[in-house]
Amino acid sequence: MNVEKTTLKEFCDMVSDKSPVPGGGAVGAIVAAFSAALNQMVANLTIGKKKYAEYEESMEEVLEHMEYSRNKLQDIATKDMEAFNEVMKAIKIPKDNPERGKILQEALKKAADVPFELARETRNILKYSQITSKFGNKNAISDAYSSAELAYSSFRIAMYNVLINLSSIKDEDFVKEYKEELEDLKNEVDGLYKNIRELIKENGFEI
Amino acid sequence: MNVEKTTLKEFCDMVSDKSPVPGGGAVGAIVAAFSAALNQMVANLTIGKKKYAEYEESMEEVLEHMEYSRNKLQDIATKDMEAFNEVMKAIKIPKDNPERGKILQEALKKAADVPFELARETRNILKYSQITSKFGNKNAISDAYSSAELAYSSFRIAMYNVLINLSSIKDEDFVKEYKEELEDLKNEVDGLYKNIRELIKENGFEI
Repeated sequence: MNVEKTTLKEFCDMVSDKSPVPGGGAVGAIVAAFSAALNQMVANLTIGKKKYAEYEESMEEVLEHMEYSRNKLQDIATKDMEAFNEVMKAIKIPKDNPERGKILQEALKKAADVPFELARETRNILKYSQITSKFGNKNAISDAYSSAELAYSSFRIAMYNVLINLSSIKDEDFVKEYKEELEDLKNEVDGLYKNIRELIKENGFEI
Repeated sequence: MNVEKTTLKEFCDMVSDKSPVPGGGAVGAIVAAFSAALNQMVANLTIGKKKYAEYEESMEEVLEHMEYSRNKLQDIATKDMEAFNEVMKAIKIPKDNPERGKILQEALKKAADVPFELARETRNILKYSQITSKFGNKNAISDAYSSAELAYSSFRIAMYNVLINLSSIKDEDFVKEYKEELEDLKNEVDGLYKNIRELIKENGFEI
């Protein structure tokens, strides 16, 4: 899988087949990139419009930060598959090899790290979805709201992938530290999403 | 945009630029296809495993229905962009043309129809996400949960796109009928999603 070469159809086929990669983690990273791209679109449709002149600077910031996020998310999608493959390789080490446990635990830690990066990135995107939802061009407001939905679902996907890996990690301090940071992130993401959902309702986009 | 030719990176670029298409509607359709593909992956990883033999038939159904959904969603993504372009063309008709109002209203109705199809399709996918979340291979359970998140967010994206189009439609009966059906769909989707979220929490995937 290569974001610059794989077509949308090929990616769907690769996800659907019997191989566990690309799985939820890589899909979550791609969906988060779509979320960032929607924020950029709303910013592009807002910049240069007299009516929204006072938000010009905020929208320029959206463009810049979302470009950075998209590049990072491409890396995360690739790293997610690599980390999974390392875990699979470690599982296949013969059980009588005394190094097996250590190698597997290290691989699992890396496999928890990657969705953690995704979780942090979705939080960043959601902050910008809040900006486009509040101040973006009203003609593209459904796109800003869509961006928020995708960032939120990518966060939850990241959370599932962190937790499934943590469940096999024996280093209790590592698990405790990751769970605490994930909980903080979740509280922040839930708060941002709740604010945007209230805005959506106020603006008549909830039936 | 062509799902068989457009790469993931190209799609992101097309979403992010100043042109409003592809926008949230097309992205929602692609994301729903990812959701269906994840359900297929979980089914593929469940079929043939002794431990899950009793769910073999359900998983075969998942495969079949999700393949159908994916094909339909490809069409929806294309139709969404076409419908939007028709609205744009109608808006550009000179205001002194007596046909303008009628043409624009017809275009808006079609533009509301397409995300409505998406909304129905995400409801179908979510039903199968519930099956994979309940009975799928436990090693791929985070992928089943991820599928549910993506189907849910695609539903909400569809809802925003139906409502933004309805807001410009003058035919009150049309608007009333669509809003009623959308509300029914929303109640069903919210119920399905709530059930899956409870399952996720019970299984320790909520921090």
